[in-house]
Amino acid sequence: MVSRSVRLAVIPGDGIGPEVVAEGLKVLDAVSPSSGLTFERTSYDLGAARWHRTGETLPDAVLDELRQQEVILLGAVGDPTVPSGTLERGLLLRARFELDHYVNLRPVKLFPGVSTPLAGVTTDDIDMVVIREGTEGPYTGVGGVVRKGTQHEVATQESVNTAYGVERVIRYAFEVAAGRPRKHLTLVHKDNVLTFAGDLYQRTLKQVGEEYPQVTTAYCHVDAATMFFVSQPQRFDTIVTDNLFGDIITDLGAAVAGGIGLAASGNVNPDRTAPSMFEPVHGSAPDIAGQGKADPTATILSVAMLLDHIGAADAARRVERAVSDDLAERAAVGERSTTQIGDAIAKRVSG
Amino acid sequence: MVSRSVRLAVIPGDGIGPEVVAEGLKVLDAVSPSSGLTFERTSYDLGAARWHRTGETLPDAVLDELRQQEVILLGAVGDPTVPSGTLERGLLLRARFELDHYVNLRPVKLFPGVSTPLAGVTTDDIDMVVIREGTEGPYTGVGGVVRKGTQHEVATQESVNTAYGVERVIRYAFEVAAGRPRKHLTLVHKDNVLTFAGDLYQRTLKQVGEEYPQVTTAYCHVDAATMFFVSQPQRFDTIVTDNLFGDIITDLGAAVAGGIGLAASGNVNPDRTAPSMFEPVHGSAPDIAGQGKADPTATILSVAMLLDHIGAADAARRVERAVSDDLAERAAVGERSTTQIGDAIAKRVSG
Ligand SMILES: CC(C)[C@H](C(=O)O)[C@@H](O)C(=O)O
Ligand SMILES: CC(C)[C@H](C(=O)O)[C@@H](O)C(=O)O
Repeated sequence: MVSRSVRLAVIPGDGIGPEVVAEGLKVLDAVSPSSGLTFERTSYDLGAARWHRTGETLPDAVLDELRQQEVILLGAVGDPTVPSGTLERGLLLRARFELDHYVNLRPVKLFPGVSTPLAGVTTDDIDMVVIREGTEGPYTGVGGVVRKGTQHEVATQESVNTAYGVERVIRYAFEVAAGRPRKHLTLVHKDNVLTFAGDLYQRTLKQVGEEYPQVTTAYCHVDAATMFFVSQPQRFDTIVTDNLFGDIITDLGAAVAGGIGLAASGNVNPDRTAPSMFEPVHGSAPDIAGQGKADPTATILSVAMLLDHIGAADAARRVERAVSDDLAERAAVGERSTTQIGDAIAKRVSG
Repeated sequence: MVSRSVRLAVIPGDGIGPEVVAEGLKVLDAVSPSSGLTFERTSYDLGAARWHRTGETLPDAVLDELRQQEVILLGAVGDPTVPSGTLERGLLLRARFELDHYVNLRPVKLFPGVSTPLAGVTTDDIDMVVIREGTEGPYTGVGGVVRKGTQHEVATQESVNTAYGVERVIRYAFEVAAGRPRKHLTLVHKDNVLTFAGDLYQRTLKQVGEEYPQVTTAYCHVDAATMFFVSQPQRFDTIVTDNLFGDIITDLGAAVAGGIGLAASGNVNPDRTAPSMFEPVHGSAPDIAGQGKADPTATILSVAMLLDHIGAADAARRVERAVSDDLAERAAVGERSTTQIGDAIAKRVSG
C-alpha cells in the first residue's frame, strides 16, 4: 500500500453544514489509515457569519487558496438572515463556475431498508446517475432588468449553451453510461420549446454517441421525466441534462430515493485543472440546525464520491457499503442522532 | 332556465386527440340540454396531417376564425413524423400566445378510488390548483444560435418576464386562492439563481398580496417543490409559477394525482379579449392511438373547466361529480375502453 497525502479544503458553511461535515470527516478519518491516505486539511470560514462580518462571500484570495487544494468538501450554505441567493451565487455557484465544475454528478439510488414515498418500488427500480451540466445554461447569471419597480419593468434571464460546454458534459455522461451494467443514457431537456439549446444538446448526443456504439440512448422531455421519476423510475440508468433541469430532477430524485438526507453530489472538474468539490444536495436547513437531527449520510456518501475522485476506489466502496449496512440497520433500530449515525458508519469502515 | 348558444371551436389534433375529444363532446352533449346550453361547433383540421399536406400549423386565416369563437376544446398535437416542436410551437404555443392565454390553470387533485404512486396519501393530501403563467418566461421563443454546427456554437434561450405579465397572473392566483377554503398561495420559482425574474415575481407577490390580507403566502424553490410534491403534497393549496416551472410541476402533479390520463387544463384569457382553450395535459400518445386505450377523463374534466369558464357552473359541477363517481366505480370494476368511459360519464350527467 502506497501512502499518499491529499490537500483537502473543508467549507462547513451554514446551518446544519458544520454538523454533517463533522461526521463526514469522522468517516474519512476512520477509512483513511487502512487506505494509506492522509489528509492535509484546511478549513475555510465562509458562509453567513463571514458575510455578516465582512460582506464577503468567496473573496478572490480564498478562491486562489482553494485552487491550490486537491479536493473540497462543502456542507451547505444559505441562511434566512442573508438575502436569498447571495451566498448561493456568491459562494456555491461562484466556486462551481470558477473551478470549472462542468460535471455535477448526482447518483439517485434507493438503498435497501430505506423507505421511499413511492408505493411498490424496490431497490432495483431506482438506480441511476444524473449528470447535470454545471457551468452554463440558465445558471450563468446573464440577464437583467429595466424599469425596475415600474409597471413597465422587464426582467430577463438568459440560458447560455455552448458546443464546448455541451460536448464535454455529454462525453462524460457517455463514459459513465458505458461503465454501468445497463449502458443506457437518456438526455433530459425540453427541445420542443427551448429549441436552440435543445437542438444543440440533441445534435451533440448523436455525434458523441457515434463513439459509444455500446451505449443506447433515449430522449425525454423534462416534464415527462418528472412523471416517470415517480411512475417508472426504472426507465432511467444514466441521465445527462442541463444545469436547471438537473437541479430540479435531482431534488425529485432525492425525494423518491428516500429523501434529501441521503443525496450526495460531486461538482467535478474531470480535467483536474482545479479541485473538485463534494457536497450533500440538501441545503443548510436552519430550522433543524444545532439539534443533532440532521442526517449526515448525504455528506458521508459525498465523501465516498470524493474518495473515488482521488483514486481511492477501495475506500469509496467501503464507505458506501458501510452506509448501506447502516441504513439497513437503521430501518430496524429506528432514528438516531447526527453524531450517532457518523459514529456507527465510522466504526464500520475502520474495522 | 335561460337558453344560450355558445360558439365552440374543436381541434381534435393528433394521435389519441380525436378519440378523447369525441368523448369530451359526448359528455358535453349529454350535459347541455338540461343546462339550457347549445353549442355551435366548428371543427378545425390542424395537426400533423395538415402539416404534411400543406406545411401549415396554425395559418393566420384559421387563427382569425378562432378569434371569433367563444371557447376552444383541443385534444393533443404532436407526431413523431413531424420534427419535434413544430406543432407544439406552431400550433399549441402560438394559440396560447396569440389568444393571450396568460393563465394556464391546472388543478392537481386526487379523486377517491384513484391510485397514486405515493404510499399512504389520501384524497385530502392532494388538492391544489397550479396557476402557470402562459405567455412569457422561457416560452417566448427569444434566443438564437451562432456558429451552428461548429465547435464554437453558442445557443441561447431567453426568459422574458414583465411587470405587466407577472402582475396579472399573480392577481388571478390571489383570486383563486381567496376562493378556496385554505386561502394559501405559494410562489414557486428559483429566485436564488434566476435573480432578475425571481425578484420581479417576489416583489409582485408582496405588492398584490397587500390587497388580499385573507390569503397567506409562501415561497418555495422549484427544486424543493418537486420534492414536496411527493413527500408532503398537503403543503400546497394554490400555486403560482412561471411558464416553464409550471410545465414541469404540473406533469409531476398529474403523476402523483393518479396519472396524466386524469389531468385537465385551461389556457385562460381572463379578460375575454379572445377565446380560452381547454385541453388535457397529456400529449398525443401516438403509441396507443386508435386502440381504444386512451383515458378520456382528462378531456372530460377539461370540458368541466370549459363549462365553468362560460358561466355554466352547475353543469361543470355535474360533470366533475360524474367523473368522480365513475373513477370510484372504475376502481371496483376495472379498466374500460375510451368509449366505455365516455359513455358511462355521459350517462351519469344526462340523468
Ligand atoms: C443552492 C442552489 C444555488 C443550488 C443549485 O440550484 O444548484 C442547489 O439547489 C443545488 O442543487 O446544489
Ligand atoms: C407540448 C408542450 C409545448 C406543452 C408545454 O410545454 O407547455 C405541454 O407540455 C403542456 O404542458 O401543455
